[in-house]
Amino acid sequence: MNREDDCSSPIVTNDLPLTKEMILDAAEQVLRRFGPDKTSVVDIAKVLQVSHGTLYRHFASKSSLREAVTERWLHQCIAEPLEAVVGEAGGSASERLRLWLETLINAKRTYSIEDPEMFMMYAAVTLDAIEMITTHVNRLIRQIARIIDQGIQSGEFKSGPSEVIAKAIFIATSRFHHPAHAKEWMAEAVDVEFETVWNLILSGIA
Amino acid sequence: MNREDDCSSPIVTNDLPLTKEMILDAAEQVLRRFGPDKTSVVDIAKVLQVSHGTLYRHFASKSSLREAVTERWLHQCIAEPLEAVVGEAGGSASERLRLWLETLINAKRTYSIEDPEMFMMYAAVTLDAIEMITTHVNRLIRQIARIIDQGIQSGEFKSGPSEVIAKAIFIATSRFHHPAHAKEWMAEAVDVEFETVWNLILSGIA
Repeated sequence: MNREDDCSSPIVTNDLPLTKEMILDAAEQVLRRFGPDKTSVVDIAKVLQVSHGTLYRHFASKSSLREAVTERWLHQCIAEPLEAVVGEAGGSASERLRLWLETLINAKRTYSIEDPEMFMMYAAVTLDAIEMITTHVNRLIRQIARIIDQGIQSGEFKSGPSEVIAKAIFIATSRFHHPAHAKEWMAEAVDVEFETVWNLILSGIA
Repeated sequence: MNREDDCSSPIVTNDLPLTKEMILDAAEQVLRRFGPDKTSVVDIAKVLQVSHGTLYRHFASKSSLREAVTERWLHQCIAEPLEAVVGEAGGSASERLRLWLETLINAKRTYSIEDPEMFMMYAAVTLDAIEMITTHVNRLIRQIARIIDQGIQSGEFKSGPSEVIAKAIFIATSRFHHPAHAKEWMAEAVDVEFETVWNLILSGIA
């Protein structure tokens, strides 16, 4: 899904029944415009032309709205494009694994520069919404595990517990995709550093 | 060096010539007591019973004082105990590498809990004092490289560029020692997660 599509949805009005997607679209717009600290549920209700009481029936608090907006973003803008990489035909498992990691790393780096409001919200939510983030991370780890399984089946990778190996690979590359390291991604050396970690991982699994 | 020794040095007075160590002792005490935001150079000068002009002749700003205090702490409380691990006699290189990593990780985890003021200052300085932190990290990477060299010489590890491999190992374990991840160290799963990353690293180098 194109990020521009998500971020420029037209303002919805109270002529339509209020769906979760409509609330999240409005919340995302308002959170982007004013930032998480200055946004109130009342602001979001105004954009939707509903009372804040109506909004509270769908989301219990501003933080649950913020979490739901981040969850949708992680799903559409991070997990779905990576799912496509796992499902691609052709190429070796190590090529696919490298492409998967580069897709994740490039997406994070690009969003941190080009969509700083959403990225900062995501970085903040990462510290608080442990359960939602764990679910997202586990989904990504299962994607890596499927690539590992492909490599074990083709004889390219050593046999082993694919989910455990996948988790180790995800954690060992944290420096390049965990939002707490975003500042370090600006350093010139970061691509060379990824290369050295990638070589270490590949010697470990091949 | 015992941490308690560093943190409870007696208040120095102007009867003695002002040394860098005396300034750092006083700065560390005041920074601990009031926190980096509320501490001023004047507060530190008061403890030392000197004018703030005298202090500015040694350190140009509060941030350079804060950086110097952190640098000393990193040297004494992190790098030196690790140096001792590298120099230890006996045991295999993989045992020594594991002990080195565990010593680093345990030190960071212990300080984050038992010395939160210094740890928070260090986490903040990490984002700003890039050059000082890079020097510290490079020192740690050279320590790992010496262990890798020991392992290559004994035939325990594959041949390879030890500094590059050492850097990859340091980065791949960031999740367990980089201060940006301190909150995640409280999770129950963190030891199991380290074990999976350690196994991946060891398959890569052994």
